[in-house]
This record gives sequence, structure tokens and C-alpha cells, in this order.
Amino acid sequence: MIPETMLQTGRSPWMDWNGPENDIVLSSRIRLARNLEDIEFPTTHSLEEGKHVLKKIYDAWKEEQQTINVPSYWTLMSELSSLKRAVLVEKHLISPLLASHEENGAVLISEKENVSVLVNEEDHIRIQSLLPGLQLKEAFQTATEVDDLLEKSLTYSYHDSFGYLTSCPTNVGTGLRASVLIHLPGLVLTNRINRLITAVSQLGLVVRGIYGEGSEALGNMFQISNQTTLGKSEEELIEHLESVVHQIIQQERLARETLVKQSNIQLEDRVHRSFGTLKYARIIESKEASQCLSDIQLGIDLGYIKGLQRPLLTELMIQSQPAFLQLGAGETLSASQRDVRRANLIRSRLKEELKEE
Amino acid sequence: MIPETMLQTGRSPWMDWNGPENDIVLSSRIRLARNLEDIEFPTTHSLEEGKHVLKKIYDAWKEEQQTINVPSYWTLMSELSSLKRAVLVEKHLISPLLASHEENGAVLISEKENVSVLVNEEDHIRIQSLLPGLQLKEAFQTATEVDDLLEKSLTYSYHDSFGYLTSCPTNVGTGLRASVLIHLPGLVLTNRINRLITAVSQLGLVVRGIYGEGSEALGNMFQISNQTTLGKSEEELIEHLESVVHQIIQQERLARETLVKQSNIQLEDRVHRSFGTLKYARIIESKEASQCLSDIQLGIDLGYIKGLQRPLLTELMIQSQPAFLQLGAGETLSASQRDVRRANLIRSRLKEELKEE
Repeated sequence: MIPETMLQTGRSPWMDWNGPENDIVLSSRIRLARNLEDIEFPTTHSLEEGKHVLKKIYDAWKEEQQTINVPSYWTLMSELSSLKRAVLVEKHLISPLLASHEENGAVLISEKENVSVLVNEEDHIRIQSLLPGLQLKEAFQTATEVDDLLEKSLTYSYHDSFGYLTSCPTNVGTGLRASVLIHLPGLVLTNRINRLITAVSQLGLVVRGIYGEGSEALGNMFQISNQTTLGKSEEELIEHLESVVHQIIQQERLARETLVKQSNIQLEDRVHRSFGTLKYARIIESKEASQCLSDIQLGIDLGYIKGLQRPLLTELMIQSQPAFLQLGAGETLSASQRDVRRANLIRSRLKEELKEE
Repeated sequence: MIPETMLQTGRSPWMDWNGPENDIVLSSRIRLARNLEDIEFPTTHSLEEGKHVLKKIYDAWKEEQQTINVPSYWTLMSELSSLKRAVLVEKHLISPLLASHEENGAVLISEKENVSVLVNEEDHIRIQSLLPGLQLKEAFQTATEVDDLLEKSLTYSYHDSFGYLTSCPTNVGTGLRASVLIHLPGLVLTNRINRLITAVSQLGLVVRGIYGEGSEALGNMFQISNQTTLGKSEEELIEHLESVVHQIIQQERLARETLVKQSNIQLEDRVHRSFGTLKYARIIESKEASQCLSDIQLGIDLGYIKGLQRPLLTELMIQSQPAFLQLGAGETLSASQRDVRRANLIRSRLKEELKEE
């Protein structure tokens, strides 16, 4: 069972590690989809089959855990309240779909929160590896290690010409989804973001908001990932995404330079006003908070704001989400109550970090 | 000649004195209009007649100044640059009309800036007395003392049945205009201000913005004054205005109570956000600055904000005006340059007052 502390902060231990291009790329994620041989996929399997899958994977974890030196926690969805499950979604440790699989869902989370294994989500197994900055290859390396470890005790559903078989055809093949969470305030402020999204889509990649499909790009954060996994090797998929991300980084840096050159004082004003808002507001909606946090992050990157570290903002972004606020309050909160709690939380956290009384 | 220091701060010495109802009534002002006998009024007089008036009043001041112990400064409009004259207008020490009378205009200002005598404005003499809070009677007392002093050496144009004769018929009679500068954020926020303005107008009083006729009610500050001076005694005029102001004060207090009761957290949020804006903005327009200053003043009155004194805000309101900003900068500034300078000035003044680094 995951420790309570994991649910109390939006800051995951891996966020404090350093990563390349970390001022623009917040995190890199690799997800591998796997299914066990000769058992129906979760989308169609019976409750009993689900239980069987759970047991097999639990046993494999128990078996292999001893051979490695990385503490991890096995947690059934049924052990967690819906609020706690929602917090794990907000931390990107599980998916909304897994959170809804109360009967048969489970998750394995490593102590540093950089690895999680989702059990009985859309597929039997989804291995996820997270790292700060642009580190897709490194994240893939970690995911592969976990994959290899589990495969010692389990037999995957694999087709010689198709590759790994999955519930959804888009995952068949490598079963790999590589994605980055990227902060693009420069491209948004210079109105170049829509053109970029169109261009990226034409390259077979998908751009989404911070909380996945259909979610809004809160705080100018975007998820960019590969769309299909069939017909290419893992390395090719990762390299393709990485090369596109490198180009986006370059575009973002150019946009920031343009902003500083053309409207330095306007930009400084915007950044500092957002800082003032977060330090003083008593009521703040999620959208405004995210926008202000994005502005502050840009301000830190450009040297306008001193004394704040970057992971704090990712942390506050996550902790500002509804489930986090409610879990912290110990009760269900209305939208307007959340707005008050969000403002208080951000205010006191900023004070703490800035070492003000 | 007025000292340079008078032009460097928006804070007049009299603002630091205490006054009744000072949380709502910022200042009380009495103005007496007088003209010299047998000389054309300034609206029609020749340049030579104007010079003659100037000399007579200057001599009277020289003569009487020795008998009293209040230092004061005689300054010709022609001695001041247009920017300096504009600063005196922004400080309410002279009128825009006097500032435009470069050939013959002059002003006498007492050291504490609570008394000024405008020479060759619309009338030969306009005696003005200012006090903090609701002190119309006390301000009238001061103005009368100055009036009596000047009358020792001068003969006023006076008609036995009409009273004092003036350029504009609305001033004939007592020549008195009594006014208060009043801060009504409660009535504005509860949308009761328009009804109040209508009611006050029906009582023979006029409601204007902070910079007189036609000016907008910047920062929820309103000037309320009597409209006519004929047919009533000075005491009656003052008492009428005072009794109406007492009713407005009561209405404003009720409105503030309602706001606190009905929307405490929204109000607190508004006040603190305005505080954050003034403490952090790098660009701020006059209108927004005034609104934020009004919010902060309300916040001080309601106890939401600690560590700030009220005159600071009146001071900042005045110092945020265009002429002040340009005189301080030592150069002509465009509107957008003023917005930057205004933000810097307010920010550093607040830091100073809050004793922050």
C-alpha cells in the first residue's frame, strides 16, 4: 500500500533530479502496454479473469522485488477512496481509466514515484516511467528494465509480425507511448502555438493539455506524444519524438527572445503581476492559478524572479487540482470553496519558499 | 516663492493632522471669493488692471504677514513652469484656471499648505482653507481669519443686499463654496452610488470627481459641495452640507457593513489583489492605480491590511498624477512612460512604508 505521504504533496521525489532542457521540458514519460498470454484483455474480461490477472502480476512483483533494490508499493484501487485515486491521477501516477476500475485495478509505484505499473487498466499491464527534462531514452531504459523484470515470471501476449498485442489497435506493435510535458508560454504569448500544433500533428504526433486527451492546455503546458506504435522500432519512435521536441524547444527559445526584445517591460509587468496575484489573492480559480504559475515559471527562466525553484511550480500546479485540495481539507469542497483553499495553499507555500513570515 | 520641497511630495503637512470621520472624509475645504472695489473683475480686466490688483494684494500680504506668525509663500504664476503649476493643481493648492493665468496670476500658500490665496483667478481673491476629515466649520474659521486679515488693508466689492460681488453669479452673496472630498467605495461596490448622487443633487449640492467639474470619480473619491451661495448665511450653507455629509457617511458605513457581512472573502480577495497589483506591477494606468489605492484604503479601514497609514494613499493618489510624475522624472513623459514611472513610484513607496528591503 502506498504511504500516506505520497498523497500529501504534489512534489514527486524524481522532480528534484536534474534533467536536460528542464526550463522548457518539465518531464519525459514512457509507457509500455503489455498483456498476458491467453487471458482476455481487460476491456472484455470477466471479474474473475481480472482477479486472476491481478494475482499473477502481484506474484511476479513479489518474486522479482527481492532481486532488485528499489522499494515499491502495491496498491489495489479498492483500497483507495475515490478522492485518493483522483490525487494519484492528478500526480500522473495512474490514469483516470485505472481510477475507475475499482474491482480489479491495481498499481505498483516506486518509492521515488518515477515508475508506476498500472494493472488491469485498458491493458493488463502498463509500465510507466517518468523523468524530469528531456530524457526519453533514459525513461525508456528504466521502463525496459521493469518490463524485463516482470517478463521473467510472466508470458506476454506477442505476435511475431505485429509485436505486442493490446486492447486498442493504436498500441499494437511496440506498445510504446513516449510523451513529454512541455511548457510553451513564449509560443502562446507570440500567438505561434496553433501553427505549431498543426505542424506537429502532421508529423504523426499528438498535442494535448496537461491532463491528457480533451483537457485544456492549463498553464501553457502541453503533452506531446507519438500516435501509433506499429511498424517502427521503439528507438525510432523515441528518436522521432525527441527530434521534434528539440525543434519545439528551439522555437520556444526564439519566441522568448523575441518577447524580451520587443516587450521586455510588458513581459516583466505580466510576470510580476502574476506573482503579486498568487501572493495576495484570497480566491483563485484553477485556470487563473495555472496561468499565473506559468507566468512565474517564465519569470524564473528569464531571471525576473529570484528565490523560487522550478519544481515548486509543478508541485503547486498539481496541488491546485480539485482532488488534492479536497484531500487536504479532509472534506468535499464546492468549486468556490476550492478557489479559497487553492489561494490559501499557494500563498502559504510561496511564503514558506520565499522565507517570509 | 514656494520652496521646491512643496513640489516634490503629494503629502501636504496638514494631511498628517487628525480629523473627525477621517476614514471616509479625506478633507474639508472652504473657499471664499472676493473682489476689490472699483476694479474690473479678472474675467474682463486689462493686463494693467491685473498688475494693479497683484500689487495691491501683495502689499496687503506684506503688511499683514508681520502681524501673524504663520509663514507663507507668495508665488507668481509666471515664476513657475507649466509643469510646476500643474503639480500645484494636482495638490489642490491652485485651480486649473489660475494655472492658465500666466501673466497676472499669483498664489499665496501657507507653510502647512492648509491655506492658499489665489490671486486673479476668476475673482481677484479666492481664499482656500483645507483640513483633514470633516471640519468644515474649522476650515471656515481659518478662511475667515485670512479674509479679515486681508480686509484690514483692502476694500472688497460688496453690495448691501446681494453681499460680496463676484465674476460668476453663482458665487454672489457669501462668495462661499464649502466642499468635502469623500471616499465612498462601499456605496460604489454595492451599486448605491448613482442613487445617492441623484438624491444629493436634489438637495442643492453638487457631486464631482476628485479633480473638480467634469473629472471622473477616480478611486471612488467624490467632491461634494454647495451649488449657490446667495440667500443663505455662511453658517447655514456649511450646516446644510455637513448634515448631508453626515448622512452619506452613515450610508457608506452601512454599505461597508453589508459588504463585510455578505461577501467578506470576496472583499478581502479584492483588497489583497489590489495590494498585490500595486506591490508588483511594472506598468499601471492612472485609473487602475486609483482603483487599487481605493481598495487598499478600504482594506486599511476594515482591518484587512496592517502597517499602512491613510495619508500615504492620498499622497500616492496625488503623486500618481501626470504632472507629478513628469516633474519627478525631470522630463516630458508619454502616457506609457508615465504608466511605468507610476508603477515604480508606488511600488518603492509601499516598500519603504512597509519597511521591506
